[in-house]
Amino acid sequence: MSSSIDSLLAAIAQRIGAAHVLTAPEDMAPYLREERGLYQGKTPAVLRPGSTQEVAFIVQACAAAGIAVVPQGGNTGLVGGQVPFGEVLLSLQRLDRIRQVDPIDMTMTVEAGCILDKLHEAAEAAGCLFPLHIASQGSCRIGGNLASNAGGTAVLRYGNAKDLVLGLEVVLADGRVWNGMKRLRKNNAGYDLKHLFLGTEGTLGIITAAVLKLFPQPAQRATAFLAVPDPAAALALLKRLRGEAGDALTTFELMAAFGVETVLNHMPGTVRPFRDRYDWYVLAEFSAPTRAFDLAALMEESLGTAMEAGEVVDAVIAASQAQAAALWRLREDMSEAQKHEGGSIKHDVSVPVSRVPEFLARALPAVEALLPGLRPCPFGHVGDGNIHFNLSQPVGMDKAAFLAMWEAFNRVVHDIVVEMDGSIAAEHGIGILKREELAHYADAVGLDLMHRLKRALDPAGLLNPGKVIHL
Amino acid sequence: MSSSIDSLLAAIAQRIGAAHVLTAPEDMAPYLREERGLYQGKTPAVLRPGSTQEVAFIVQACAAAGIAVVPQGGNTGLVGGQVPFGEVLLSLQRLDRIRQVDPIDMTMTVEAGCILDKLHEAAEAAGCLFPLHIASQGSCRIGGNLASNAGGTAVLRYGNAKDLVLGLEVVLADGRVWNGMKRLRKNNAGYDLKHLFLGTEGTLGIITAAVLKLFPQPAQRATAFLAVPDPAAALALLKRLRGEAGDALTTFELMAAFGVETVLNHMPGTVRPFRDRYDWYVLAEFSAPTRAFDLAALMEESLGTAMEAGEVVDAVIAASQAQAAALWRLREDMSEAQKHEGGSIKHDVSVPVSRVPEFLARALPAVEALLPGLRPCPFGHVGDGNIHFNLSQPVGMDKAAFLAMWEAFNRVVHDIVVEMDGSIAAEHGIGILKREELAHYADAVGLDLMHRLKRALDPAGLLNPGKVIHL
Repeated sequence: MSSSIDSLLAAIAQRIGAAHVLTAPEDMAPYLREERGLYQGKTPAVLRPGSTQEVAFIVQACAAAGIAVVPQGGNTGLVGGQVPFGEVLLSLQRLDRIRQVDPIDMTMTVEAGCILDKLHEAAEAAGCLFPLHIASQGSCRIGGNLASNAGGTAVLRYGNAKDLVLGLEVVLADGRVWNGMKRLRKNNAGYDLKHLFLGTEGTLGIITAAVLKLFPQPAQRATAFLAVPDPAAALALLKRLRGEAGDALTTFELMAAFGVETVLNHMPGTVRPFRDRYDWYVLAEFSAPTRAFDLAALMEESLGTAMEAGEVVDAVIAASQAQAAALWRLREDMSEAQKHEGGSIKHDVSVPVSRVPEFLARALPAVEALLPGLRPCPFGHVGDGNIHFNLSQPVGMDKAAFLAMWEAFNRVVHDIVVEMDGSIAAEHGIGILKREELAHYADAVGLDLMHRLKRALDPAGLLNPGKVIHL
Repeated sequence: MSSSIDSLLAAIAQRIGAAHVLTAPEDMAPYLREERGLYQGKTPAVLRPGSTQEVAFIVQACAAAGIAVVPQGGNTGLVGGQVPFGEVLLSLQRLDRIRQVDPIDMTMTVEAGCILDKLHEAAEAAGCLFPLHIASQGSCRIGGNLASNAGGTAVLRYGNAKDLVLGLEVVLADGRVWNGMKRLRKNNAGYDLKHLFLGTEGTLGIITAAVLKLFPQPAQRATAFLAVPDPAAALALLKRLRGEAGDALTTFELMAAFGVETVLNHMPGTVRPFRDRYDWYVLAEFSAPTRAFDLAALMEESLGTAMEAGEVVDAVIAASQAQAAALWRLREDMSEAQKHEGGSIKHDVSVPVSRVPEFLARALPAVEALLPGLRPCPFGHVGDGNIHFNLSQPVGMDKAAFLAMWEAFNRVVHDIVVEMDGSIAAEHGIGILKREELAHYADAVGLDLMHRLKRALDPAGLLNPGKVIHL
């Protein structure tokens, strides 16, 4: 550790308290381990400020010393965006106050370090819904969700994380605070600056607080687990259900047989939904803020028509909340269950919704041709055109040898995605994992604009350097 | 006209055709007149390119010659954003093709010059809904709607114009074309660049095409015109109706008595909705994409409870489409009708939804104190917190003398708005009309960020110079 960083850390310790400047390896370890084990972080110190002003102090002090900063929320990111490689790590976890919940404005004002599930609870306590639902919601933090524009299982109805934001507070690269904490539904007073920071993974500024939209709480829910002949039938079903239920259709998830069987094999307490086995499944959930009509009846009638049309071949309808939860586990436990099947090479891609069947029809044989015995596990948010195109290794293959093929699989899968006008990063972001892929595929004008923004907002390149784009 | 501009126009005429380079005053006049008569435009030429490539050619040629460009759509803007003051005028009107309508993806790919109403028709022909509805929809163009982030009467349910955009094609200040025409529901592959151009009024790039979201077409509609005791009751009613109908409540507009009486007095064929006169009215519309429940019954039941609670004192329910149209006229004709009452000083402001009653309670006596006899005409999208706080002149006052008080009224109204954490430009934008107001009220960090963006994307200041911000 150089003396320049020593004196920087001393100044920061004086401001935020020595207890919040972690330098012992065992204290720092939880911030440097990363979910997928793809990266090992390295930092001189983990800083845990307790307020926006302390974040600003740290960023300003680091900028003055020419030291780069990596912001981190719950450390649940899947593309390494939150991993430091020698930079100072700034953890937002202590900024965890819910400043206000307003059920008339239908807004919630929160700090970046709030755990997502706490926001669900706070909204519910006020008779409202905060609809962002992702697998890591018990530990991820809203600042990270916003910086990475998280997606999840309710995007079909409520949009991505950034669609849920009205206002933002951000610490800029030079330590100034931009206060954009408006809770307005309409505001055209100048450029809408919050979009500089939503989804830009901490490379243009550090989100410290946000005003979020709330929604009416569902008064009824209806959940069904369906067997469908193929992805094309799933799409036809999607169109039918949206036509009949409109926005009451809030979840529509597609799963291949391998994934469901993997959950049933490995996750204790999971229950086989059908006596028979099928190739493709759909989890559909309906919800409505009103009791003015019978949602379950509407769902059952729609599904009946869909069965007559051959879009659905078998169906289980949850008769209780417990049954609904059991059906959800078949989808929610999929990433966890896959860990029991050895190495997994993951692609988080999207294509236009109408082209999901075509994507699967092209990508599945292509990856199987690259490695015979491969066990593809495609699943995800088909209503958003977003497929988690995960690939489990062949049985018995060496895990490291399999994972070494990651780039080769990227090329095959991403070539198809890009040819189909899709995205190689649908909801997990770019981080470090996909930076070279982005550089490979992104159009030159778009990349140039990204670089211009980075230079305009962080000319010294001190905010999460090397993430998303090279500077 | 200097020789440099002569040779520029000659080169452009050669590329886009001499017929599309207008220089005769009578040909240019329709492009230089502006709806409210606040500004008289002035330009050496009106250029009418027919394709994105021609737009790019013009912008590149102008940039090379150091000549500034003002883009213009339907010339319906209300803040002078589309008015040239000596710059070349680039009209997007000939880029009016609908490139694709896809009812599976629920998207529509359109060029910037498409008239908004044509998009409504095209969506409807495909069994879908494009929900942007504003007063000028018969002549405004989608490019201008997106550049100004138009609002309108369906924002409550569907969001503002920029919420309806998936992809964008933009000609940059140096004439390069950014192709961001993805029709994806999820895409986190790098910075979301479209937000640089949506709502920035042509100051950072010229929108030439867009991919828009479509929605399921309503299968039923129910419309009611209501008398309410006061704005607080209107808000309580809004909360009740959203709680009971959720997203089926698609319009919720508040009007003061003066505005409704003005419509009834001046607009031929309008019909008085109630025998009695009331101080405040609400137009509420419900719509749903399904026939699975009876929307009219739901509305009537909700309104019945609201009457018992004293939130509604009188109600007319449309029994036919014609009756619904008649009720809508009472709201839609308001701006037009106001022209018959002499000068009108207009404020397009927003506050948090919950604070609309407080805003009206403060602002109404404040403006009446400034000019006794003033006839305020507040109306608008109360569900979005957006009030068109229009002020009709006292009877018999000299119009010019009244309009000369615009800035004095601005100060009174905007001071209250800003104190209440509101916006001085809710849905009409900044343009030239509110540029000094924005500079007066905007926070210094936000203004600095806007300037950084402008310098990063248009360093020579040649795109719509002087609009939104000074450079």
